[in-house]
Amino acid sequence: MKIKIYKQKNIFSQKGNVLTFLKKGQNGYKGFGEIYFSTIKPKKIKGWKKHKKMNMNIFVISGKVKFVFYDDKRKKFYKKNLNENNPKRLFIGPNIWFAFKNMSSKKSIIVNFSNIKHNKNEVLNKKLNQIKFNW
Amino acid sequence: MKIKIYKQKNIFSQKGNVLTFLKKGQNGYKGFGEIYFSTIKPKKIKGWKKHKKMNMNIFVISGKVKFVFYDDKRKKFYKKNLNENNPKRLFIGPNIWFAFKNMSSKKSIIVNFSNIKHNKNEVLNKKLNQIKFNW
Repeated sequence: MKIKIYKQKNIFSQKGNVLTFLKKGQNGYKGFGEIYFSTIKPKKIKGWKKHKKMNMNIFVISGKVKFVFYDDKRKKFYKKNLNENNPKRLFIGPNIWFAFKNMSSKKSIIVNFSNIKHNKNEVLNKKLNQIKFNW
Repeated sequence: MKIKIYKQKNIFSQKGNVLTFLKKGQNGYKGFGEIYFSTIKPKKIKGWKKHKKMNMNIFVISGKVKFVFYDDKRKKFYKKNLNENNPKRLFIGPNIWFAFKNMSSKKSIIVNFSNIKHNKNEVLNKKLNQIKFNW
């Protein structure tokens, strides 16, 4: 499955920090189409979704989020946790079912840097209970 | 001065929201070089900085931030406030002195989508008291 975690370089200072996310040409960079932010309330789960074309670079800027991926050929699940205290970049390639849950007691905020613009024709959706996972 | 505010389209739902930020080709889009996040503690001020080449698209994803710009030819200040409850995109062109203050009682988080990669040779710095502004 085309899922990868990349560590970030961060600069800490007395006034606040600088968290690097993505530079042109880095591993996982597949061009730029659109960037947007998803907020998710405590304990809520968003998904399932599968993008036919979109490559995503994901960052959790606030809160704590569990991402679950489903490989429908091997019938296997994969998990990745991202949280604001240990910032990492998550790369998700196309053709992977995924859903995510806010594991924090506050709102979580997710950054999605995508290689294409939003296009509803390249997204498949399933209801949460159509892919059964023990959240 | 090349400063512009662009309104965002947002999608609100029961689980959380989607906040659009920037699409390729939109007004203010000048290519992609790097994206990073700056956090700033309450009441702190970061600045002054002037980029010789960088075009920035800025978003305040959390908190409340006052941006101040200084036009050193006209000796004039300009102000823009961004906050998480009224999300907007702020475009800042090159050759503008700017500084910003966290006006919130919690940490603020700023997204900077830049058209070039970070390069210390294109940044000028001044101490806060070298450009006097009544914060």
